[in-house]
Amino acid sequence: MRSDECIFCKIVRGQDEASVVFQDDHVIAFMDLQPVTPGHILVVPKRHAAGLEDLPVDLGLRVWETAHRLGCALRLTNLRCEGVNFFLADGEAAFQEVFHFHLHVFPRFAGDPFRIQADWRVHERAQLDATAEAVRQGLVALDTLDR
Amino acid sequence: MRSDECIFCKIVRGQDEASVVFQDDHVIAFMDLQPVTPGHILVVPKRHAAGLEDLPVDLGLRVWETAHRLGCALRLTNLRCEGVNFFLADGEAAFQEVFHFHLHVFPRFAGDPFRIQADWRVHERAQLDATAEAVRQGLVALDTLDR
Repeated sequence: MRSDECIFCKIVRGQDEASVVFQDDHVIAFMDLQPVTPGHILVVPKRHAAGLEDLPVDLGLRVWETAHRLGCALRLTNLRCEGVNFFLADGEAAFQEVFHFHLHVFPRFAGDPFRIQADWRVHERAQLDATAEAVRQGLVALDTLDR
Repeated sequence: MRSDECIFCKIVRGQDEASVVFQDDHVIAFMDLQPVTPGHILVVPKRHAAGLEDLPVDLGLRVWETAHRLGCALRLTNLRCEGVNFFLADGEAAFQEVFHFHLHVFPRFAGDPFRIQADWRVHERAQLDATAEAVRQGLVALDTLDR
């Protein structure tokens, strides 16, 4: 996507409306239009990146640092906040809808409507060891790419 | 919780079994026993911290950096990976179950069993502006604490 068509790039340039809670030279944080709970924030790098693969490492660290502060700040607001979730959706299969990297930060409280469904069965050690080996091979492949 | 009773501290000390994919002086990453998809990793700071509030900023950055690398590495494995989610559960109300900080990193693919339920209604701008103001006040309160 060209960055002049990206809705988050428009917000970064001040060409689209947003309820901003924080910004610096690298990162902007604003309220999600469809909050799962009141206080749901998106932390967004100002420079366009679609996802983890094209997000510069340093910029990712800025995003995390901002999210860490916001996660702590949420507990100090008058919003209901008994816990905090961070959620990253990287890729359409992972529920990403806006293809400009963003980290969700939202408060949680007992009885709120956010729910996760998954298959929570415990896996055998041999199976876990095999997937661990696959991941280690992925790290080796990544090192090869980085070189 | 005393750290000698913490199951993740036991893994860090090598006193409990884990399928480890990466570790350095600060962080360890191993397979979740109950993977939502094969390749589900937990990234864990070696020094005990329960959550965002007692996790040192620098250590959080190490966790993120490791997760960023693992998120990219998952796409280079032979595991099914068409997307990646990161999920942090900070506090019981946010679905935290082990009270040693950990960031979930897991691959996603079309038709996998992971689902999210929430109330996705778009909120009014006035409402979003009011919650943004509450969050900004939380940041001011956090700055006061930090001083």
